[in-house]
Amino acid sequence: MSKQIKDRNFSWKTHWDIEYLRENDIYTWFQEIERELEDGWVVVKGKKMFMLGGYSYLGLNRNPQINQAAVDAIGRFGTGMSGSRFLAGTTELHTKLEKKIASLHGKEDAMLLTSGYLTNVSTIAALVGKNDYILSDRLNHASIVDGAIYSQAKLVRYKHNDPGSLEAALKSAPQTSKKLVITDSVFSMSGEVVDLPGIIRLCKKYGALLMVDECHSMFVLGEKGGGIVEYFGIDPDEIDIIMSTLSKAIPASGGYITASREIIDYLKHESRGFIYSIALSTIMTSVALEALDIFESHREELVGKLHTNTKLFSQALSAHGIPIGQKSVTSIVPIIVGDANLAAILARKCQESGLYIHAVFPPVVPPGQAILRASITAEHTEEDLLMAAEKIYQIFKEAELVK
Amino acid sequence: MSKQIKDRNFSWKTHWDIEYLRENDIYTWFQEIERELEDGWVVVKGKKMFMLGGYSYLGLNRNPQINQAAVDAIGRFGTGMSGSRFLAGTTELHTKLEKKIASLHGKEDAMLLTSGYLTNVSTIAALVGKNDYILSDRLNHASIVDGAIYSQAKLVRYKHNDPGSLEAALKSAPQTSKKLVITDSVFSMSGEVVDLPGIIRLCKKYGALLMVDECHSMFVLGEKGGGIVEYFGIDPDEIDIIMSTLSKAIPASGGYITASREIIDYLKHESRGFIYSIALSTIMTSVALEALDIFESHREELVGKLHTNTKLFSQALSAHGIPIGQKSVTSIVPIIVGDANLAAILARKCQESGLYIHAVFPPVVPPGQAILRASITAEHTEEDLLMAAEKIYQIFKEAELVK
Repeated sequence: MSKQIKDRNFSWKTHWDIEYLRENDIYTWFQEIERELEDGWVVVKGKKMFMLGGYSYLGLNRNPQINQAAVDAIGRFGTGMSGSRFLAGTTELHTKLEKKIASLHGKEDAMLLTSGYLTNVSTIAALVGKNDYILSDRLNHASIVDGAIYSQAKLVRYKHNDPGSLEAALKSAPQTSKKLVITDSVFSMSGEVVDLPGIIRLCKKYGALLMVDECHSMFVLGEKGGGIVEYFGIDPDEIDIIMSTLSKAIPASGGYITASREIIDYLKHESRGFIYSIALSTIMTSVALEALDIFESHREELVGKLHTNTKLFSQALSAHGIPIGQKSVTSIVPIIVGDANLAAILARKCQESGLYIHAVFPPVVPPGQAILRASITAEHTEEDLLMAAEKIYQIFKEAELVK
Repeated sequence: MSKQIKDRNFSWKTHWDIEYLRENDIYTWFQEIERELEDGWVVVKGKKMFMLGGYSYLGLNRNPQINQAAVDAIGRFGTGMSGSRFLAGTTELHTKLEKKIASLHGKEDAMLLTSGYLTNVSTIAALVGKNDYILSDRLNHASIVDGAIYSQAKLVRYKHNDPGSLEAALKSAPQTSKKLVITDSVFSMSGEVVDLPGIIRLCKKYGALLMVDECHSMFVLGEKGGGIVEYFGIDPDEIDIIMSTLSKAIPASGGYITASREIIDYLKHESRGFIYSIALSTIMTSVALEALDIFESHREELVGKLHTNTKLFSQALSAHGIPIGQKSVTSIVPIIVGDANLAAILARKCQESGLYIHAVFPPVVPPGQAILRASITAEHTEEDLLMAAEKIYQIFKEAELVK
């Protein structure tokens, strides 16, 4: 097979040197989890490990009420979907969840899709096309970059979190053109918050539509977890289109867009990833509804615990001289390494010591800026977090990276 | 809001005239299902309706063993995922399902994604890029078209199911270029089967890689539901890359690619929709594993019932002179109408009479070829199918479309 395909001009070389990583036993991706336990512990190859790479920020995964909501949906609809949302795939749970999400964001309507990546890609491709302009932060998530490329609009990647660079780009686009500005609210690898007020001002000045990806801010940023709008105390109408996910703080799957009724109605009839795709699972829809109920009634307590835990862990690392990204406003704690192979070695050592944590390589992070990416949840105990920080310190010390 | 956005050069007009459809009360999409019942019946707005638009071809949705597999996964992992497959999102269920899918297709390995649309888009974009060639059947599914556009390769849409047209396109591509031929195995709107032996011969002759979308053939085509390979009695190695879905006959969500170990290893490190997306839900993974077990032990019986039901329904319509697509080899029964607004009116009348069936408009079908799209399942009873055919006949008769 292999030879035959080579003859056909295809090569299967990957952009990461996975052969090197495998030969040196520092290939640490795709580790199979066997079971999730309490307090952010998991079982991997029969061994208990402390999960420092999970997304259940508010500790809601495995919540008994949420599990029950999943079971209820199975009883009502089974496990499969009857088709796309357009045809046989809409249930009353979908409509209810869309209304709830819109109301939570202070918007008129919402649209659910089966993944966050798909949500960004197909929304952007539906909003703009050839001859239109997309102005996108250079460190935006891959799904935004891909959506921008796929849309065939003119893509300008402005300097990271730099309104000056954005303004220069806006100025150079023709006044009559459609201009879509897209930014992450919190950048996924650094945890850094965007200068949104600066961007809003520019969108108004230059007549651009503003889309904000709240995957790493909604439910976790601000004392009430109200996301970027709460953080800056701005009116939700200042952002035209908000995108976020149901697979992080909300322990389901899927992504959503929330905006004015007019825009959502447009997107539901123009977004090809929505039209030509299966509906979001009723199980996931039911889970998200229940999780949002719990979020609404316990948001300050859940978010407070998350912030306390994150501070505790970050300070413990800093006290040992471990370099962490200082700009993080959320529970993402990037431990800075630099060299990719060194990050892989450190990740392997962490895993051997019982910490489920991963190295993140370029191009996911900028060149030469490989990290170990820790993410903290409200479920972690203080004792476990201090234990993890201590283990990371010992590994960095043995590697002579800190004293 | 509306005015403000208009000022910014954006228009929210959709390509379908949804205002006309709404004003004339023939907008029939997005009908909310409240509950699924036995034998393909559903509840919509408190009323029982007979589902003729569902995808649970083998009637496996709501199977108690499959429901239990979902509940078991919830107990083990909760309802959420810890991240992308790369980092914290791989469980042993994922690896097990990938091996099982590969073995079912006679391939070496497989890769799971969260939707079929995403699977096609991100696989195609990972396989080819600028200066490469994609040769795609003109009636391929939208996700293939979008993947082809997104990849930025040179896209040639050859004449529908016409090896002669494909050969002309292959001839015109440079000998040293990467050439990817993609086709649906069964076309989603007509149910027609592709001339695969003809295409395989051409791929060999011109050194092209062959990718086949089996969303509408795997599990349903052939006496054992073995798909296109069983139908034509060909060696699985004749197809380089097989794509299919877990959201039709298999009552879960998600899509998959199965191919050689080398290609899957490449795609797992290069497909951006795989890398930058949440893992397939463990619930869905567990459901698919159980459903595949049931499929393997009852395939001839389940597929036999599906084929019998489809034949019964098609013959009942034909006996009344209702025009149906004659090329369908699967349980998709396209009822041919032509004019889109007439199709919408007929769909509304069917729904009023208790049949859950939809009109499909261009561009989903070719211009001027609007249909009512019925899909039959193994769960339907003969009595109900004859009742449905009779109702459709009465509606066509009242509209003076048949005598």
